[in-house]
Amino acid sequence: MSEALNFELKKVDKKTGARLGVLHLPHGDVETPVFMPVGTQATVKSMTPEELKNDVKAHIILSNTYHLYLRPGHELIKKAGGLHKFMNWDRNILTDSGGFQVFSLGDLRKISEDGVEFRSHIDGSKHFISPEKDMEIQNALGSDIIMAFDECAPYGATYDYVKKSMERTTRWAKRCKDAHKNTEKQALFGIVQGGFYKDLRKKSAEDLIKLDFPGYAVGGISVGEPKDEFLDILRYVTPLLPENKPRYLMGVGTPDYLIEAVFAGIDMCDCVLPTRMARNGSALTHKGKVNMLNACHTEDFSPLDSECDCYTCKNYTRSYIRHLFKAGEILGARLLSIHNLRFLVNLMENVRQAIKDECLEEFRDEFYTKYGYEKM
Amino acid sequence: MSEALNFELKKVDKKTGARLGVLHLPHGDVETPVFMPVGTQATVKSMTPEELKNDVKAHIILSNTYHLYLRPGHELIKKAGGLHKFMNWDRNILTDSGGFQVFSLGDLRKISEDGVEFRSHIDGSKHFISPEKDMEIQNALGSDIIMAFDECAPYGATYDYVKKSMERTTRWAKRCKDAHKNTEKQALFGIVQGGFYKDLRKKSAEDLIKLDFPGYAVGGISVGEPKDEFLDILRYVTPLLPENKPRYLMGVGTPDYLIEAVFAGIDMCDCVLPTRMARNGSALTHKGKVNMLNACHTEDFSPLDSECDCYTCKNYTRSYIRHLFKAGEILGARLLSIHNLRFLVNLMENVRQAIKDECLEEFRDEFYTKYGYEKM
Repeated sequence: MSEALNFELKKVDKKTGARLGVLHLPHGDVETPVFMPVGTQATVKSMTPEELKNDVKAHIILSNTYHLYLRPGHELIKKAGGLHKFMNWDRNILTDSGGFQVFSLGDLRKISEDGVEFRSHIDGSKHFISPEKDMEIQNALGSDIIMAFDECAPYGATYDYVKKSMERTTRWAKRCKDAHKNTEKQALFGIVQGGFYKDLRKKSAEDLIKLDFPGYAVGGISVGEPKDEFLDILRYVTPLLPENKPRYLMGVGTPDYLIEAVFAGIDMCDCVLPTRMARNGSALTHKGKVNMLNACHTEDFSPLDSECDCYTCKNYTRSYIRHLFKAGEILGARLLSIHNLRFLVNLMENVRQAIKDECLEEFRDEFYTKYGYEKM
Repeated sequence: MSEALNFELKKVDKKTGARLGVLHLPHGDVETPVFMPVGTQATVKSMTPEELKNDVKAHIILSNTYHLYLRPGHELIKKAGGLHKFMNWDRNILTDSGGFQVFSLGDLRKISEDGVEFRSHIDGSKHFISPEKDMEIQNALGSDIIMAFDECAPYGATYDYVKKSMERTTRWAKRCKDAHKNTEKQALFGIVQGGFYKDLRKKSAEDLIKLDFPGYAVGGISVGEPKDEFLDILRYVTPLLPENKPRYLMGVGTPDYLIEAVFAGIDMCDCVLPTRMARNGSALTHKGKVNMLNACHTEDFSPLDSECDCYTCKNYTRSYIRHLFKAGEILGARLLSIHNLRFLVNLMENVRQAIKDECLEEFRDEFYTKYGYEKM
């Protein structure tokens, strides 16, 4: 176990396998299952830390190593006293490894055993990230949970490609573990890869478990595949992971995916979806997705979501929010960002209560039928 | 006097003529001299009402009739319960008449004795605003102070043009007074015009004073003229106005203009400058104007303005604010908007204290020498 993280598994639901736990971390406790808002560039888009605490009620957020490495640079953030101080957030931060972003660059990157050479999406400058360099960057950022440098193979990649990629990711995970300098304050998670090939997933999980990470992530799903394939792999991989360690499903954030992840035994999720939707004028509500630009809201003086306890729903009407979007006003994105994040954080609070009350299946059924979200 | 407004003149500085007062208004008291943040489209750009109250410490804001009339429409705002309720702001609001915006449309508008026909800058649709229509709109908005429908003649207009325009503005002011339906809750101000011709200014002031408005504005200066012409007209017009009524200088918001306005005997000012500057990355500080995009702030871990008490200056570094702007993050505009507005509201708080302490001239001299703002 990492000294930085103590995972307390409080309950496993007998009927579903869903788990209730607490992550004891350097910047406070985090109850799981948890949804983590994403602050890619050292800010959760449009929001202050106070809003994340008081309105969203978030205890952990995610930030992106690739973006911070390029701008403003990890050395600058280290000089600022670390990412928490730089961005004025005194609760927990998880940083990804940047692997996903680097591999998403396509022609702009070149993989070797040693690492990945790539060009910046900002200015075209050339960079090289190895597992060792990645640990140096994340150690400089000082985030509470850091991720091993991995390759996320694209959906549709051949068995042969995924096998070689997964094996290299495992070798890189070992190198990350060896290079990680700050185990007392930062917990390093391994990332299971293997694409949509179960034997490769099994091999990846087994080899990473031998390295004894304090937590494990499932990477490389929710990358464009049909829902049934997503669920098939998720439900196959998750039970392979150690019961006494936290399990993190990367990049998932629609309400239905979150609930299914919990059923599969996942403890942590993150996604840019709620804030990206917010900037486009879309809201997640207890009556399904709502596009605030629609004319039907023009004279609707009711709250966005009458079942929601957030700042936006307590203080503003649909009519006003629609006006803000039609007029191109920043406050519109702010109000919907608060609401959408609160909606998902609150969803996970309700999921935790349902696990405690042993009524998770009923909760899921009600969520799908009552709230109009598509059943998977 | 309007039943909506009771102006209490507490002190006139013997040396300078600067005035200390209180506007007793339906949504609370406002100490003067005061700077009013502008919320053009029923939102002070990027900010919540709570930030305006708690961080900026604003007691009155301005909103723009022309914009609200076009979008979302005054009828909709009336249905919402008025502008205060629509935008969730329970302190005072002043609305302009829209005259300035309509006349700024240039070729898109046509003036007659009855009013102005113009095309919307949003969708090109045709509209007609008369003094009576303007009162209907502002009565529907329900703002605490409303402005008479006037023509702001452009800088450089001929004597003959300005004379005819000013005389029509006076006739329109009378029509506004007659059409104003809600004197108990909304105080209607007259606007002195007359361009840069003193005899026309005098005539305008005299005729409007006969109409006995509860307050008077000086319009048609700070429209592109040299500073000495601005000061010359301002210092000529202001003393012509009744001592026992508030005097509002429209559209002024740089620190030096604000201070000079106070010296001239002005009680109220407004300007979009602080929030517009903020969105462009510029800050008003106790060490002059600062462009946060400059490279010199890259590793500057000190506050934006060490003499400022605002949320931004208490919680963030210049380095972080610069990062937000370089990365195109909304929070950057938010943090500078809070600061710039707080800076001007606080400047007026300090001006009021200096009037109380009878040291306004010393305050002005120190402001110009210490803080690096250009002396007028």
